[in-house]
Amino acid sequence: MKLIIDAMSGDNAPQALVSGCVMAAKEFGQEYVLVGQEDILRDLLNKEGAENLPITIRNATEVVDMHDDPARVLRRKKDSSMAVAFRMLAEGEGDALVSAGNTGAQLSGATLIVKRIRGIRRAALPTLLPTKTGKVLLIDSGANTECTPEYLLQFAFMGSFYMQKVVGVDKPRVGLINNGTEDTKGDPLRKEAYALLKQAGDEGRIHFVGNVEGSDIMLGTCDVAVTDGFTGNVVLKTIEGAAKFLGSGIKKVFLTNTRTKLGYLFVKPQLKSFMAVMDSSEVGGAPFLGVSKPVFKAHGSSDARAIRSAVMQAIRYVEGDVVKTIQENIDQMTI
Amino acid sequence: MKLIIDAMSGDNAPQALVSGCVMAAKEFGQEYVLVGQEDILRDLLNKEGAENLPITIRNATEVVDMHDDPARVLRRKKDSSMAVAFRMLAEGEGDALVSAGNTGAQLSGATLIVKRIRGIRRAALPTLLPTKTGKVLLIDSGANTECTPEYLLQFAFMGSFYMQKVVGVDKPRVGLINNGTEDTKGDPLRKEAYALLKQAGDEGRIHFVGNVEGSDIMLGTCDVAVTDGFTGNVVLKTIEGAAKFLGSGIKKVFLTNTRTKLGYLFVKPQLKSFMAVMDSSEVGGAPFLGVSKPVFKAHGSSDARAIRSAVMQAIRYVEGDVVKTIQENIDQMTI
Repeated sequence: MKLIIDAMSGDNAPQALVSGCVMAAKEFGQEYVLVGQEDILRDLLNKEGAENLPITIRNATEVVDMHDDPARVLRRKKDSSMAVAFRMLAEGEGDALVSAGNTGAQLSGATLIVKRIRGIRRAALPTLLPTKTGKVLLIDSGANTECTPEYLLQFAFMGSFYMQKVVGVDKPRVGLINNGTEDTKGDPLRKEAYALLKQAGDEGRIHFVGNVEGSDIMLGTCDVAVTDGFTGNVVLKTIEGAAKFLGSGIKKVFLTNTRTKLGYLFVKPQLKSFMAVMDSSEVGGAPFLGVSKPVFKAHGSSDARAIRSAVMQAIRYVEGDVVKTIQENIDQMTI
Repeated sequence: MKLIIDAMSGDNAPQALVSGCVMAAKEFGQEYVLVGQEDILRDLLNKEGAENLPITIRNATEVVDMHDDPARVLRRKKDSSMAVAFRMLAEGEGDALVSAGNTGAQLSGATLIVKRIRGIRRAALPTLLPTKTGKVLLIDSGANTECTPEYLLQFAFMGSFYMQKVVGVDKPRVGLINNGTEDTKGDPLRKEAYALLKQAGDEGRIHFVGNVEGSDIMLGTCDVAVTDGFTGNVVLKTIEGAAKFLGSGIKKVFLTNTRTKLGYLFVKPQLKSFMAVMDSSEVGGAPFLGVSKPVFKAHGSSDARAIRSAVMQAIRYVEGDVVKTIQENIDQMTI
């Protein structure tokens, strides 16, 4: 398998991408192409002592930055690392693409250069979150601000396939995020999506467990939490904010006085490993589900470890062959 | 001031309501009317030794329960404690009403029996949440699943008045919850609401600070976080779920082994008081903003202490005269 790495993407480019790629090559094998400014990348690779690793470089002179208009940058900067990387994927010069670049620009690249799977109305960006009992896939977590009931139905299917093939959940339980668990809850979008999901569940096409509330998401009541990208973004960011608030509160507790500081020493390793569960570098990235080839988005603030995690997930995504599963089941995912 | 207490409301009725009322009478003074089944309430009051407190009883034979249809119960059960309490408030037999009953039934009572303030399109149910630097009012947190841009504008004004008059924030910063901070973000509702809020801010009618993300809510970037009731419900419940998830994770950390259990003893008081910040019994309740008289909703699971807190906030709400402030400013709150 060959992975295309958009080496000039994200806040810590290109160092984090190169180091993360080197870590991945050592740990997982596979082949890699780093796309970006050749001299800089060559230099970094040499410093990493990566001469004998299966990593090559593809030169791309331009860089997408935060001032570029996401919707147009891939057409305007045709020799940017991101545009080159997307064209390479589209033309079969690699099996998956990993980028930590702007989400909007990646979504454009995924849908306009690589293209959606035939029959898929919108590509979705899911996020895998920790729960009390395992993991939950929040889908869509931000790619599509406005959705139709059919998009939500397709998100449910794509999320189920992802949890099955990549995370290894046998019969993923699908919940619809709503403002109450009763069947009659929600705005028109929720009510219509509920009817579609219920029918798909009754026919055994998915394992629909009904409406779920915000409080259920992290408590493990479902494996796939379906919502529109507006609500998904707000949910994801709210969790981030709540975790920061609680994390800083706990920190303050331990810093109160000498006695509490002493207490910290007794729980330090356990507390650190629990806090790491909430850390995005452990999760790494997410695929644009519904795109005809694997495009993996890493967090913009990714460090080398997070890039390594994103690569690992991209490998699992390719091996799980989620794209093919979606293609084969497209008839039961449309209305 | 006379407070009307719907004594048969909530999961712990009537005990929690009676005890909470007794606590409030001892601590805050004021007069109280407990509405509900007279013999039961008389008995509980006697057990509390409340003979000399300014608490009277109004008999109401029926009880609203969870099987009743919220929209119709007040018409169907005219002698329920809730229906009697709402009529008493409407007819001037008290200055405020506190109930821990079904939210939907209370919203019906507030809008159909007590009525909205003239010019207010919808009553909103706000929730006061802790932040890193103080408190934020989430409005609407669940009363109105579908909203127009004008509702959101009115929520911004009502929330500002509440934070000013009841919580004591001088110039409350208003943020619009959105899927990004840029001006252009959001679905059509957000874009139109943004324009209205921006104009009100530019004209100095409110202190609008722009779009805020989910992650900003608990970090103290605004004092009033405006959203529709669907998103508000999801945000509120997501925070609840995240807090439970993190709380149980922290608990597990301390229960790992003898060493960590020992560590717990060093931070116990500080940890407990931080966890209490997240506890709803400390917050107590919320008013239906936009209703022509003070209706205060306490959490359904309220214990006596939470009822006492709700009564305290209801007193502050009456003293702050938020209803009058809304009435006096109604012209600048409509489009």
